[in-house]
Amino acid sequence: MAAYVVARRRSLGWITSQLGESSPSVVRCATLWRSYSTSFREERDTFGPIQVPSDKLWGAQTQRSLQNFDIGGERERMPEPIVRAFGILKKCAAKVNMEYGLDPAIGKAIMQAAQEVAEGKLNDHFPLVVWQTGSGTQSNMNANEVIANRAAEILGHKRGEKYVHPNDHVNRAQSSNDTFPTVMHIAAGMEINSRLIPKLNTLHSTLHSKSIEFKDIVKIGRTHTQDATPLTLGQEFSGYTTQVSYFPFCMENANLDAWQLAQGGTAVGTGLNTKKGFDVKIARAVAEETNLPFVTAENKFEALAAHDAFVECSGALNTIATSLMKIANDIRLLGSGPRCGLGELILPENEPGSSIMPGKVNPTQCEALTMVCAQVMGNNVAITVGGSNGHFELNVFKPMIASCLLHSARLLGDASASFEKNCVRGIQANKERISKLLHESLMLVTSLNPKIGYDNAAAVAKLAHKEGSTLKEAALKLGVLTSEEFDTLVVPEKMIGPTD
Amino acid sequence: MAAYVVARRRSLGWITSQLGESSPSVVRCATLWRSYSTSFREERDTFGPIQVPSDKLWGAQTQRSLQNFDIGGERERMPEPIVRAFGILKKCAAKVNMEYGLDPAIGKAIMQAAQEVAEGKLNDHFPLVVWQTGSGTQSNMNANEVIANRAAEILGHKRGEKYVHPNDHVNRAQSSNDTFPTVMHIAAGMEINSRLIPKLNTLHSTLHSKSIEFKDIVKIGRTHTQDATPLTLGQEFSGYTTQVSYFPFCMENANLDAWQLAQGGTAVGTGLNTKKGFDVKIARAVAEETNLPFVTAENKFEALAAHDAFVECSGALNTIATSLMKIANDIRLLGSGPRCGLGELILPENEPGSSIMPGKVNPTQCEALTMVCAQVMGNNVAITVGGSNGHFELNVFKPMIASCLLHSARLLGDASASFEKNCVRGIQANKERISKLLHESLMLVTSLNPKIGYDNAAAVAKLAHKEGSTLKEAALKLGVLTSEEFDTLVVPEKMIGPTD
Amino acid sequence: MAAYVVARRRSLGWITSQLGESSPSVVRCATLWRSYSTSFREERDTFGPIQVPSDKLWGAQTQRSLQNFDIGGERERMPEPIVRAFGILKKCAAKVNMEYGLDPAIGKAIMQAAQEVAEGKLNDHFPLVVWQTGSGTQSNMNANEVIANRAAEILGHKRGEKYVHPNDHVNRAQSSNDTFPTVMHIAAGMEINSRLIPKLNTLHSTLHSKSIEFKDIVKIGRTHTQDATPLTLGQEFSGYTTQVSYFPFCMENANLDAWQLAQGGTAVGTGLNTKKGFDVKIARAVAEETNLPFVTAENKFEALAAHDAFVECSGALNTIATSLMKIANDIRLLGSGPRCGLGELILPENEPGSSIMPGKVNPTQCEALTMVCAQVMGNNVAITVGGSNGHFELNVFKPMIASCLLHSARLLGDASASFEKNCVRGIQANKERISKLLHESLMLVTSLNPKIGYDNAAAVAKLAHKEGSTLKEAALKLGVLTSEEFDTLVVPEKMIGPTD
Amino acid sequence: MAAYVVARRRSLGWITSQLGESSPSVVRCATLWRSYSTSFREERDTFGPIQVPSDKLWGAQTQRSLQNFDIGGERERMPEPIVRAFGILKKCAAKVNMEYGLDPAIGKAIMQAAQEVAEGKLNDHFPLVVWQTGSGTQSNMNANEVIANRAAEILGHKRGEKYVHPNDHVNRAQSSNDTFPTVMHIAAGMEINSRLIPKLNTLHSTLHSKSIEFKDIVKIGRTHTQDATPLTLGQEFSGYTTQVSYFPFCMENANLDAWQLAQGGTAVGTGLNTKKGFDVKIARAVAEETNLPFVTAENKFEALAAHDAFVECSGALNTIATSLMKIANDIRLLGSGPRCGLGELILPENEPGSSIMPGKVNPTQCEALTMVCAQVMGNNVAITVGGSNGHFELNVFKPMIASCLLHSARLLGDASASFEKNCVRGIQANKERISKLLHESLMLVTSLNPKIGYDNAAAVAKLAHKEGSTLKEAALKLGVLTSEEFDTLVVPEKMIGPTD
Repeated sequence: MAAYVVARRRSLGWITSQLGESSPSVVRCATLWRSYSTSFREERDTFGPIQVPSDKLWGAQTQRSLQNFDIGGERERMPEPIVRAFGILKKCAAKVNMEYGLDPAIGKAIMQAAQEVAEGKLNDHFPLVVWQTGSGTQSNMNANEVIANRAAEILGHKRGEKYVHPNDHVNRAQSSNDTFPTVMHIAAGMEINSRLIPKLNTLHSTLHSKSIEFKDIVKIGRTHTQDATPLTLGQEFSGYTTQVSYFPFCMENANLDAWQLAQGGTAVGTGLNTKKGFDVKIARAVAEETNLPFVTAENKFEALAAHDAFVECSGALNTIATSLMKIANDIRLLGSGPRCGLGELILPENEPGSSIMPGKVNPTQCEALTMVCAQVMGNNVAITVGGSNGHFELNVFKPMIASCLLHSARLLGDASASFEKNCVRGIQANKERISKLLHESLMLVTSLNPKIGYDNAAAVAKLAHKEGSTLKEAALKLGVLTSEEFDTLVVPEKMIGPTD
Repeated sequence: MAAYVVARRRSLGWITSQLGESSPSVVRCATLWRSYSTSFREERDTFGPIQVPSDKLWGAQTQRSLQNFDIGGERERMPEPIVRAFGILKKCAAKVNMEYGLDPAIGKAIMQAAQEVAEGKLNDHFPLVVWQTGSGTQSNMNANEVIANRAAEILGHKRGEKYVHPNDHVNRAQSSNDTFPTVMHIAAGMEINSRLIPKLNTLHSTLHSKSIEFKDIVKIGRTHTQDATPLTLGQEFSGYTTQVSYFPFCMENANLDAWQLAQGGTAVGTGLNTKKGFDVKIARAVAEETNLPFVTAENKFEALAAHDAFVECSGALNTIATSLMKIANDIRLLGSGPRCGLGELILPENEPGSSIMPGKVNPTQCEALTMVCAQVMGNNVAITVGGSNGHFELNVFKPMIASCLLHSARLLGDASASFEKNCVRGIQANKERISKLLHESLMLVTSLNPKIGYDNAAAVAKLAHKEGSTLKEAALKLGVLTSEEFDTLVVPEKMIGPTD
Repeated sequence: MAAYVVARRRSLGWITSQLGESSPSVVRCATLWRSYSTSFREERDTFGPIQVPSDKLWGAQTQRSLQNFDIGGERERMPEPIVRAFGILKKCAAKVNMEYGLDPAIGKAIMQAAQEVAEGKLNDHFPLVVWQTGSGTQSNMNANEVIANRAAEILGHKRGEKYVHPNDHVNRAQSSNDTFPTVMHIAAGMEINSRLIPKLNTLHSTLHSKSIEFKDIVKIGRTHTQDATPLTLGQEFSGYTTQVSYFPFCMENANLDAWQLAQGGTAVGTGLNTKKGFDVKIARAVAEETNLPFVTAENKFEALAAHDAFVECSGALNTIATSLMKIANDIRLLGSGPRCGLGELILPENEPGSSIMPGKVNPTQCEALTMVCAQVMGNNVAITVGGSNGHFELNVFKPMIASCLLHSARLLGDASASFEKNCVRGIQANKERISKLLHESLMLVTSLNPKIGYDNAAAVAKLAHKEGSTLKEAALKLGVLTSEEFDTLVVPEKMIGPTD
Repeated sequence: MAAYVVARRRSLGWITSQLGESSPSVVRCATLWRSYSTSFREERDTFGPIQVPSDKLWGAQTQRSLQNFDIGGERERMPEPIVRAFGILKKCAAKVNMEYGLDPAIGKAIMQAAQEVAEGKLNDHFPLVVWQTGSGTQSNMNANEVIANRAAEILGHKRGEKYVHPNDHVNRAQSSNDTFPTVMHIAAGMEINSRLIPKLNTLHSTLHSKSIEFKDIVKIGRTHTQDATPLTLGQEFSGYTTQVSYFPFCMENANLDAWQLAQGGTAVGTGLNTKKGFDVKIARAVAEETNLPFVTAENKFEALAAHDAFVECSGALNTIATSLMKIANDIRLLGSGPRCGLGELILPENEPGSSIMPGKVNPTQCEALTMVCAQVMGNNVAITVGGSNGHFELNVFKPMIASCLLHSARLLGDASASFEKNCVRGIQANKERISKLLHESLMLVTSLNPKIGYDNAAAVAKLAHKEGSTLKEAALKLGVLTSEEFDTLVVPEKMIGPTD
């Protein structure tokens, strides 16, 4: 991050903020303040010259954005997967452009510089925040400028000289209006496939193991949060397993349109300034580079003007969040206690819950996961609002939409992994407690119906409820059954499936 | 609806509401007040006897719900598609139950009564609101009671005698906990397939016709709401067409899980009190009855405890809403005017816009549609919240989730149909205006670059902008081109696609 | 509702819907189908003549809207409070207009007719749905037409003759653009003040009673859903009471702007076609008529173009929903059981939970309330989207915004009242269970620290946890305390507040 | 950030991620990878010893959280205002605790160390992410550990020795359950008052200046995006000004409860382990320290278990977002062009819109602001979901709620400031264009009604519309008026207010 704060100050004639004056003992700072370079070079664009920190590869347009959009500070920077996707796209563009006449020496230097961006090596040269122009133009220019300066260096030229030109060479046959939606799709496709889905699959397989591990533990069921008929703990976990098993399909279905790349549409979708076939070739190059099934978009006008594919994809993430919220809530409630809750599950103890209460395990992984789910639900609304507000040939909520989707995907993946590793994997059944609750339950009286009739059975249950006794005690007291008969009839294990 | 208000008053010892006392001239009423029967019969359940209006088929449990959930009034009644789906399900259940020993005479009477429910003939006997128990138990009992009383009548017996028993016969081998999610899926599947998708398809085909009709009209493009390079009006509409073309796939993908029926899971998902194979048979019967691809749910625990399939489906509706919002916004802005807007489209005039301004056409269909889109986005959040709040073996936000989803599907379908018929179908291009704007645009200067160079071209554009003249006037004034040369070079029709 | 379906069919050349063809046994119907009049009269507007059902008071513009907006069916009709507010407004407008020269005979007839609308007597003459033009113009014209025809009748003239003119007389000095936002505010102000807040106050006072009733019952606290230090049940309920006590302030704060009426702004906010002072007088008249503190809007441009006051008000309803969701969730979990849950509260039994399990009380009121809360959260998003989409001088999401806000307010009020009456009022503490859990809790060991030191106390707790014994048993086994000492030291009643 | 990645790797037996293997040319990294220390010291908690980087002040519990919650990476760290608020709170706690017996030497050292935290000097020692335990316990312990180690150093002792104890000294008389909600309120109060509201006020005053600057410019009004009666540009801006003028009140109203501090409630709200009066004293100390009107919470149970105050506050931010979305949309549409849009406003040109189209000014500040608004709407839903999910004595969505609220407040403030400075301040009216559109408008015909009657006026308008001529041309052609009469009657300046 180094020098950009200084650069911002220099250009703006920074005035000491009066913020925080009402709070004398606290120094406020609008942006992070660290060591910085004191050396600058001049870069130019059609607006004229501007000072840029010498140790940075970016150029004039990046510098202007930095000064014009002082919104949110460092943590609002364009997400790293977008920066890397720019590296991939610009590398592929250079490769295809060489087929169409780009000087091979320059083309290869661009490819090398772009590869460095793709690998995250030049992250510090991408200082712009999400809250900029809604087309992402400034981040596209940031990529063009950084790659141009780096490619020039590779070829033995100086930064700022434009031996490699950000527009004419790096951005050749491209427009921000098609590059930004393209990198949105590349970044999302990679994040979801390489990071999110593998983590969801791991969670699924651990839940599945648990449902097998717990398959013979019969427990009380609960509906309306009230006691109901029994099931096995394995059956209960099989419900969670099934929920999670749908996630990859849900993402895949939602993602079909996400493989379509806008590249080749240029400014308004017509493909002005490209050659025929450019769109297909560049999509193929991206597909090869990423090993993912990217294709050129069926209709470039749609691909620039709308982000329905992202809204759909966010809807799938929202479904996953909804589902995980249910599972995590169940697990924390089933693990509540140790003495005054349901106590059927024993959750792993990862950190001190309290220095004085042994056995108190706070379900912290459930808490982190459910907070993530709430955030994903919120991001889905932000994406929906952004997606609905396109105008004419261009939707200009692109950086926000991209940022929210990548945020949701990253958080869901990481939190699922953390939940799997630090919670689900270590869950144990508290068999003693489960058995105690099951056998105390009045609901087992159902089994007596065939033998003593509904009215007698109801009388047994009512007496037990009234006196706080067991069903057996009540049955014996009412004299409707012998102890042996009761034990033969009341067998929860027979209540967990349909009959032949 | 008739008598239920009276019944409610009788049972509750209604006290004259003090509401509205602060507003003396206005009489408030909590619920609609119409003519009503004055005759009642006694019905009973395990809570004892209760008075029910004689002309209604419902029984004791419906009556209690009516009294205990005075929330929202008549317009909050359980949506009709749910009521009809109960008819379908109960008919199928009776059919399958006869295979498992249900008395055929009673079974057939149930099937006949249930068919009447499926046809909407008994809608007036379903007075319960959405805001009841979260399992929908009371609506399931409403269906059981109405069908039992109607079937008894068919067999020559009286209402309330329970010759056909709501639980033992109509609800046989069922639980509210599996019937309600089943009717949710039946209702949603039917609404979406029979009502929503055909309407979306019609909209798609009309938009497609328009994109062909307009294929030769070159117009100015707009990005960032600002003038940009040209495209054809047909290309612009092809973007909308493509958006809408994805809707059915979007719904289908989301709907895959929606075909899974919970029936056979009974109280907690184990299928207690059913026979093996019951679940498969009933799903097959429903599939035959509806001609839709329903199957039994892979995992009944999931099917009762979570509604991820509905959240996913709502996500698809949300995507459609987002997409239609964009299209409708574009159309109203392109049709803005008649003199002081963009004025490129002429929208059909369906009603007086103003009694004094001829030519003022308010884009009212766009307005109705975008309001619907906003409501669908809201319903999606309600469904998300409901879907995330299941506890243990049962999600108890079922009626709200069902109501919101059916609301969204119905509104989107109806509004799309209205928009298609009363707006899109009649859209005309204002060719004169389109041409005027196109040729005034400074952006066409791009075409001069190859001939006179970037610097001269920029000078032309700057002069035209400064003086408010045309590009041609500026070019001639600067003496960089002849009139003939200008006309040869500046041809928007050549700017609408990639070059060879 | 009667005849409007017919009228719609007549005019549109209705074609039998192919809907439901895929589902042969089910007859679908797009709109309700009831008995209807067969007689029509001709009404006219600037578009020409149109057939209107003879028994209806509405005119040509209402009829056109009915035919052009076939969206959602009967239950989507403009909410009744809006219709009634139109009655109030039109009455006040006639009153003020008489001061400015409106013929007193006509003015008085309008006032009488408008009063009938305000009282809900003419509800059947307001058939239009929410999903119409976004300015609500058509509902304003519906009110003008109905009142004009009714006033004409009062004066001995016929419907359709325009002896009293809908525009010139009833709508005099008004525009839809100021009347509709005005009735939105009147309707919301009345609903919130007369219906919602009294119900919230009743809920507050019942919760407060409970917190007093339970003030001496010491129970285990729970944080992270895990056992924690004790508090009284009264303290727990005092938290709920405090939450609810803020609701009226929350509504009042949010409502400050809602008292501002747009009336007098006419078409774009300038007040064209009104006389100076008209705006102030009509606001005063409305204030008198409703006994509510309405005033004329400070800035009419804002009042037409934005609905920030409604968004703010919806935000307050959203806060209430959030808060009630928490309370209702706690109550159902504290009342879970009867044997296998927490079981600290005994909730009233309002209906059969299950025919076989005495003691099973489903927390159905909590379920209805929490479903309502989810719907309110969804409506808040719909209102937010609508509120953010105004263009220039007019926001055209008005009917949807009004409908959602009134929906939320009505549901929250009714559900709070139902929850109060059918649940909170009858909650009993299960003292035995509370005491058992409290005394089993390991957390009481905290009290031993001062006497035996942290290490010994921890050893006691750990032993009890390991052996599943009581703290006392563990303490005696370890020999660190006598039985008497233990009983003196471990007194939960001393742990429920700060010390002196 | 330095060393924490290493620490995480060491402890976890980090395995090279297989992520990204499907994408061979791209190296993925889960967390940032920078230079790090290689030296560690041992810290301990009740779980035993753990390695901590030597150059960091945090202790064992922070280190465990770092390892157990690898979610989202560096940019998900607890927001800085929370960290600083911990500094303020711990300083105040030490001050008050000295009154209750805390050793003054230790107390003063804690105050000094806490002051450094409050000033942001120790930010690098707060590595934990938002996605941790839902009570924020781990961040509270992070603060306790850092301040204890730093205070020990001040007193000449070593890190890790616990000469100053994180729990017994720094956290004295506190619990995470009351400190975290307290710092949430401190941070939000400060952010909103010191940062957000001043920026909103500046925006208000600039809009107000513009409404005065533009007060004599008469322009066409637009309703339904269609031409309507005129108003002044100043009136139009006065609408925006009024909207923004309500923001501070909106925040203040929502904020009333936000001044209430939970501190003194300790674990469950009872104040166990505090002395009477502690709560009042600490709130007073915080109020003095911050110059903000903090008080102790009326009910501590509510203050721990619910976050209604934050939901309400977020609702206010949502209202502001909705409002700013409308304003920014208007401004970009009114500034659309330069040739083919509405073109009434000239927006400042801050960066190259396009290298080829002079006069093309992309409304990038509007775009950044509206993207922020969408994000705030999304965050509001996340906060709503979190706020509704509290259980019993503690809401465990605290860090997410705090993070979203601070995110929204920061973004709204910064984006408003950027919008004000880089857009609104420089807006110019395009008087020529405004005048041209106004005088072309057909709607001015309204003025002729009194003179020539409605029918003739309508005929004039219809002719002008049909022939594309001016009203004057049409009037002269029809012979209903002389040129002089027309000029006398058609005066838009007389149409911008009510008449006397």
